[in-house]
Amino acid sequence: MAFGWIDEQAEQRRSAGLVRTLRPRPADTPLLDLASNDYLGLARHPEVTEGAARAARTWGGGATGSRLVTGTTELHAELEHELADFCGFEAALVFSSGYAANLAAVTALAPHGSLVVSDAGNHASLIDGCRLARGVTQVVAHRDPDSVRKALDGHEGPAVAVSDTVFSVDGDAAPLVALAEACREHGAGLVLDDAHGLGVLGDGGRGAPHAAGVAGADDVVVTVTLSKSLGSQGGAVLGPARVIGHLVNAARTFIFDTGLAPAAAGAALAALRLLRREPGRAARAGAVARELHTRLTAAGLEAVRPDAAVVSVRAPSPEQAVRWAADCRAAGLSVGCFRPPSVPDGISRLRLTARADLSGAEIERAVRVIGDTRP
Amino acid sequence: MAFGWIDEQAEQRRSAGLVRTLRPRPADTPLLDLASNDYLGLARHPEVTEGAARAARTWGGGATGSRLVTGTTELHAELEHELADFCGFEAALVFSSGYAANLAAVTALAPHGSLVVSDAGNHASLIDGCRLARGVTQVVAHRDPDSVRKALDGHEGPAVAVSDTVFSVDGDAAPLVALAEACREHGAGLVLDDAHGLGVLGDGGRGAPHAAGVAGADDVVVTVTLSKSLGSQGGAVLGPARVIGHLVNAARTFIFDTGLAPAAAGAALAALRLLRREPGRAARAGAVARELHTRLTAAGLEAVRPDAAVVSVRAPSPEQAVRWAADCRAAGLSVGCFRPPSVPDGISRLRLTARADLSGAEIERAVRVIGDTRP
Repeated sequence: MAFGWIDEQAEQRRSAGLVRTLRPRPADTPLLDLASNDYLGLARHPEVTEGAARAARTWGGGATGSRLVTGTTELHAELEHELADFCGFEAALVFSSGYAANLAAVTALAPHGSLVVSDAGNHASLIDGCRLARGVTQVVAHRDPDSVRKALDGHEGPAVAVSDTVFSVDGDAAPLVALAEACREHGAGLVLDDAHGLGVLGDGGRGAPHAAGVAGADDVVVTVTLSKSLGSQGGAVLGPARVIGHLVNAARTFIFDTGLAPAAAGAALAALRLLRREPGRAARAGAVARELHTRLTAAGLEAVRPDAAVVSVRAPSPEQAVRWAADCRAAGLSVGCFRPPSVPDGISRLRLTARADLSGAEIERAVRVIGDTRP
Repeated sequence: MAFGWIDEQAEQRRSAGLVRTLRPRPADTPLLDLASNDYLGLARHPEVTEGAARAARTWGGGATGSRLVTGTTELHAELEHELADFCGFEAALVFSSGYAANLAAVTALAPHGSLVVSDAGNHASLIDGCRLARGVTQVVAHRDPDSVRKALDGHEGPAVAVSDTVFSVDGDAAPLVALAEACREHGAGLVLDDAHGLGVLGDGGRGAPHAAGVAGADDVVVTVTLSKSLGSQGGAVLGPARVIGHLVNAARTFIFDTGLAPAAAGAALAALRLLRREPGRAARAGAVARELHTRLTAAGLEAVRPDAAVVSVRAPSPEQAVRWAADCRAAGLSVGCFRPPSVPDGISRLRLTARADLSGAEIERAVRVIGDTRP
C-alpha cells in the first residue's frame, strides 16, 4: 500500500516517546505564556491588530499574486523601506515567511562553484537553504570564527558564511564581529539570521547586526522574521540594494510565491512603529530573560545564560521533558518543549521565552512552577 | 569584493532583456486586472476582508510560534476541518504558504530509498521539494502517465508521483485519472498540487482531484493554496489522517515555521464559506476563461485552450512579451508576462487569468487591447 511505511515510522516514534500532536488553543486562555516567540508582547496589541485589520480592508485578504506580478503593494514597499531604515540597511525585501526569506538568501547568494560555510547549530531553514543551494556547503563548529576562517582558506570563487545571530534552541549568540572579520579577510559574504535578535538586541531593538556594528556593510546580508518581536507573519532580507535586486531576479521563493498578505504587512508595520516609539520594550525583554535565568539557577535548575530573550533549561530525557512541560501546563504555565529531532545535539529542554510585558510576579510564579514540577 | 559576482549576473540579465523590477501598486487602480490569481474575485470581497480583520482582532496579528508550540489556534483547526470536508479528504494541515505546503508534502513523503517521479512542467515549489527530498527524483515527460508507469516499473520501496493538476504557465490540466491508475498499479502514492484547480474545477470548486474522483483516496495527497481562489495567503496539504499525522511529525516547513497568521486563516475560511454558499462562482471562472480563449483565437492570437482559469498567449520573444504587457498596461489592462527563467520551455507568453467577476464588456475590452497591442 502506497503510504504503508508511514505506520512503521509512527510506531517507532511512539515507542521512542517522540510523537507530536497539535493542541489548538482558544483565543483567550488563563495560561501564563512563556512558550511563544511574542518577545515584545505585541501580537495582541490593539495597534498591531488594528494595523492588520485596516490593511485587510484597504488592500484585500491576500496579495493576489507573485510579488513580480500583482503581489507588490505600496504597503509592502513602505514596510520594506521602514524595516531597512530601522535596522540600518540600504534595502529590504519582504517574504511570506522567515523560512522563505532564508531559503532565498542562501540559495541566491550561493551559486554554482561557491562555498557556503554553515554553523552546526543553524536553524532548519538555513540548513534547507544550504541543501537547495548550487554551491557546496561545509558545516563548521558552533560559534567558531576560526573554523569559518579555516573553511574559507584557499577557496576560489564566491563564498558566504551563514549563521543565526541568536540560536533558537539555547538562545546563545553568535560572535558577529569575529565572524565578519573572518569573512572580510577572505572576501566572503556574511549571511545572518536575526530572527531572535530583531526587537530584542541592539539600540531600541535594531537587532544583533546593528549592535555588532555590521549592519549596512556591503558584505553583510541579514534575514529577519516578522512573526516574533513584530507579532505578525512573514520574513525579510536586508542588505545592499544590489543584493536585494539580485534576490528579486534570482530567488525562487520570492519569484514563485504569492506576496505576503496585506494584513501581515500592516501588522508588522504597526509593530515596528510602536517599537520605534517605545524603544524600552527591547531592553525589557532582555532584562526579563536575565532575571528568569538568575532565579532558575538560584533554584538549582540547569539553565543556559541568555544572550537574548530565550532561556533554555535542560531536561534529563525526552519523556521527562514532555512530562515536565505537561506538569507546568497543568499548573497554569505554558512552556516550550524541544526534543529530537528539533534539537541538533539530541538534548531535550524546556524552552522559555521572556516577554517584555511579563511582570515581576509572573516571573516569580513561572520560576516557582518550573521548580515545583522538575523531574 | 564579497558580492561582486552579482554585478556580472545583473549585466547579463540586462543585455538579455530579462531584468525584473518591482512595481508597487496602489490600493485602488483603474487597471482592468487579468494578471492576479484572484480567480473568484474574492480577495477584496467584504466578507473575506472582514474575516481577516475579525480574526486579527480575536486572535492577534500573528500565530506567535510554531504550530507545534503556540501557533495552532482553534481557528486553524476549524479551517483545516472545513477545507478537508469541502475537498473530500479525511484531514488537512495548513501552512504559511503553498510553497511551504509543497516542500512539506514532497519531502515528508519521499524518504531515503524512495523514488519521486516528477512531471517536467511542475511548479518551482514541487521541484524544490524534490531537490530537498531524501529520495531520488526522476523527471518524466509532461502530462504523460506512461512515462510515470515506466519510471515506477521495477522500483522497490516507497514511491510517489508528483504533478500539478493545472500547470501554472499554460493552464493545461494533468490526466489525473490515468496518473492515479499508473500509481496504483505500482503501489505508489500520488501527490497533486491543486493550486490552480481549487475554486475553479470540480463540483462547486472542490478542485481537480474531486472532479477526477480521486479525492479522499488512501494513496492520494493534495496540496492547495489559500492565496488564489480563496483570496488570502497560505497553503494546505489534504490527505488521509495518517499522512497528515506524519507531516506534523516529519515536515520541516511545518515544524520549524511560524503558524499561518490568524488574519490569513480567517480570510480563507470566509472565502471558503462564501464559495460553498455561491458555488456558481467556480463554473463562471472557467466560462470566462473559455470565452477569453475563443475571442483571442478569433482575433488571430495564439492562445492555449484553457482547462481551468489560466489563458496563455504566446509572444515572439522575451523583449516583445515585456513590451506587449507594457502596452496593454498603458491601455488600461494588467496582464501577466512570463519569461525565462520562469518558463520551463523558454517560451515567453502573456498570462491572462479569468476572474469569475469579469463582465462581458470587460472581457471584450481585454481582448481588444491585447489584439491592438500585439507585436
